[in-house]
This record gives sequence, C-alpha cells and structure tokens, in this order.
Amino acid sequence: MAVEIELKPDERVDDLLLYDLKIIQSEKFFCFSMDAVLLANFALLRKGDKVIDLGTGNGVIPLLLTIRRPAPEKIWGVEIQEQVAQMAEKSVVLNGLKEKITIIRGDIKEVPSFFAHGCMDVVITNPPYTPVGNGKFSPYDAKAVARHEILCSLEDVIKVSAFLLKYRGRMAMVHRPTRLTDIFLLMCKYGIEPKRLRLVYPRLGEKPNMVLVEGIRGGQRELVLEPPLIIYGAKGEYSEEMREIYYGSCQ
Amino acid sequence: MAVEIELKPDERVDDLLLYDLKIIQSEKFFCFSMDAVLLANFALLRKGDKVIDLGTGNGVIPLLLTIRRPAPEKIWGVEIQEQVAQMAEKSVVLNGLKEKITIIRGDIKEVPSFFAHGCMDVVITNPPYTPVGNGKFSPYDAKAVARHEILCSLEDVIKVSAFLLKYRGRMAMVHRPTRLTDIFLLMCKYGIEPKRLRLVYPRLGEKPNMVLVEGIRGGQRELVLEPPLIIYGAKGEYSEEMREIYYGSCQ
Repeated sequence: MAVEIELKPDERVDDLLLYDLKIIQSEKFFCFSMDAVLLANFALLRKGDKVIDLGTGNGVIPLLLTIRRPAPEKIWGVEIQEQVAQMAEKSVVLNGLKEKITIIRGDIKEVPSFFAHGCMDVVITNPPYTPVGNGKFSPYDAKAVARHEILCSLEDVIKVSAFLLKYRGRMAMVHRPTRLTDIFLLMCKYGIEPKRLRLVYPRLGEKPNMVLVEGIRGGQRELVLEPPLIIYGAKGEYSEEMREIYYGSCQ
Repeated sequence: MAVEIELKPDERVDDLLLYDLKIIQSEKFFCFSMDAVLLANFALLRKGDKVIDLGTGNGVIPLLLTIRRPAPEKIWGVEIQEQVAQMAEKSVVLNGLKEKITIIRGDIKEVPSFFAHGCMDVVITNPPYTPVGNGKFSPYDAKAVARHEILCSLEDVIKVSAFLLKYRGRMAMVHRPTRLTDIFLLMCKYGIEPKRLRLVYPRLGEKPNMVLVEGIRGGQRELVLEPPLIIYGAKGEYSEEMREIYYGSCQ
C-alpha cells in the first residue's frame, strides 16, 4: 500500500518502536514522550470500547492504542493546535488507520458541543502538566501550550471527561506527582472516583516523576495502588517491564 | 535504676529492638506493628517540638520518638482503652521517660476540650484502618476498636488534628492505600495540605500495603512523593533501609 503524505519542511517521520507504527513529528512542536507510551499501556481497555484522547498532540496515544488487545473499536483524538492536529491526521493515514482513528482539531473545552453526554467508554489524557501561575505564556507558543495550562486547565480536562464518560466509564491520565492532590480532588468533584494509581520511579531509590491514575465515573470509593513501575536498572538500562512495554506485546 | 512495675496476668514486657527501649504488651489487645515503627521514622521532627499521638495504643510511637534526633520536647499519647492506656503509662515509667511522655486516657474526639487550639507542632497517628461499614463490632472488643473505626472515624482524627495543630504544624499518618482518596479529601477539608507521601511496598514488584502521609496545616498545594520504601529483599531478608530503621540510628 503506497500512501502519499505531504510533509512540511519541519516535519519528519519517526518510527514508533512498537510494531511498524510510524509517527510524524516536528521539532517546532512538542514531540511525544515516554509519558504517552506508559499511559497508552496503563489504560484498561475492553473489547469494543469507544475511546477519546483529550489533547492528543501528534496522535501518539491513539496510534499506540490500536495495538492493544483487546482492541478498542474506535478512537478519537482532539487537538487544538492546527499543524499538530494535521500531523496526527497524516500519521493516521500513513499507518492505514483511518477507519479506526478520527482526529478532531478543536478545543477540549468545546468538546461537549459536538459529542453527546456519556458517549465514551474511556477518556485518556496526557494534559499540560504545569499551572500557568504568574508566568506569562503566549497562546502562540506551541510548546508552551502543550506543557502549561494555557488553553486548558486540569479542571477543564476532568470536567469534560466527566461529561463524555458513560456511567462506569474510565478516565486514564498521566501527570506529575506534585498534582496528585488536585487530581484526586477534581476527579471527586466531578464524580470520577480514583480507582487505580501507579507511581513511576526513574530508578529504584529515587522519587517518582510520574503518576498514572485511573478513575471510574460513578465508581465506589476504593483505590488500588499498583506495584511500582521502575524505568531504569542499576546500569542505566531499561528495566524488564520497560523493555516489555517498548518492545514486547502491549498487553 | 530499679523500677517496680506491676503487670497484669496477660501482660508481658517486650524489647523494642531499637536501643534499650522496652514495651509492655498483652495478647488481649492490639500489639504494635511495623506500621508504627515506620510512622515514627517518617514523621519530620524539629528540635523542641510538642507532639501528640492520637490513638497511641501501648505507647510505641511516643517511646520511639524519644530516640529521634532532633528530639521532640514533649510527647502526649491519647488512648481510649483503659488497660491499654495503663500499659502505655507503665512502659513510660519502665523506660524512665515520665518527664518526656504523658499518656492520657481519653477519647480522641474529646481532646479539644482539654488541649488549646493550635498548641501542637506535630500530630502523629496510626488510626484504625477499616471503616465499620455494615459489620457489627462491639465497643468492648479491644482488638476491633484498634482496627476498625468504631469509636473514631478517619474524619474525627483529621478534624481533631486540625484543631490541635498550630499554623504550619505537621500531621503524620500511616494508613492503608485504599483510603488515600479519603485521606486527601479530608485533610483538604480541614485545611491540612498533603505535602509528603511515601508508599511502602512489601517487595519490589508488589502492590504497596501502606501509605505514609504528612500534611501541613495551612500549607500550599504541592505534594512531594518520596522514593519507595521496600520492606523485604528477594530472599525475604529485610531491605537495607529497613535494617537501618530497625537497628540503626532512627534519624
């Protein structure tokens, strides 16, 4: 199958290590990171699930979800930045996944105006990590938009997720440990009960630098903390679990 | 120094592994566990601190805090069960620590009637872990009182802690991972900001079975997650950190 994809000068095609997936990225924008790979691996999926990725960036999470088993039925990715959404769309075409993935260029906060309440089984999101605080950022600074809550706060993401999720639908998120209190408080505020938490430690003996959280809309209070995910071994090599995530079966 | 201590038939004197501390325990009641040892090690102490242990049981935490450096100035332990409070009091005498530790027999919920608002630098607590739910427990079942929220709920403990703590005072707690959401929500409800969280994993690769949480009354939102505490090594031996906690210097 030959597919013609037009790349802009700053865009390039990278291999996603897993399987034969390819992804279009640009140095001008936020490139996908390990966080997205871990999140795509962490989310619980059931056969036939309808999944939406809020703030999909270049579409790495929808792409990775297509190789999960059981496979979701359909994945939507929402991205506000035009060129980034176009890159995601082109990656979908490049990988022959147009039937499976739909990229929508739009504002997460506007999603409730074009999706029905309770229509999704799963919301997945790797949102901007840093509150804007007193710093000044331009909404035209593409990397700042991906990293800081300029166009979309944590509360926006969780509020919209609660709108989209069916009763007992699942929200999976990756974030920084410093924000765990906010995540718990806001999930509870919008009726999404934190149910599963996994801490990601760069190395044994170090502080965690990521949290993977799954909540269930309308779930009962009972949190399960999972075994630690340790990224690197003593010699700086990937841990066995990380090698499995990157090179092995994704489920 | 010869001290005469009268033991009841069910009571015995155990060595606390650390230093030369001894503790009186009884099989009829809840004996101290590793949780208390880890909590006594986790709490941040400053020189001259006034510390209260809510639900002190046989007084293990006040005893262990006396060997921490910097040392707290004064430690109060509150225990509702009469014989347990008496055992704690006798352990204090046995260890020659009457100047340092005061045991109070009383109900945690009544503590605000005999302590002033904001009088404590640190509240420490290893509260009952299990909500009563639909189970029926007798308030006369001594072990059930220590394990289940029969006489005192998590909310009671946090509410009283917020009353006792001075502005910027610290609350340190050990609990089960399943209750982390409740802990965060209730601390925030009563103005104690979760600031430090450490997960305790029995073995590498297993789920954590304890959480150590420290909050600061009036603190700003920013949670620090600490390196994992792993209890056992691959061969079932204590990990290096655990050996340090049990046999080494306590700070």
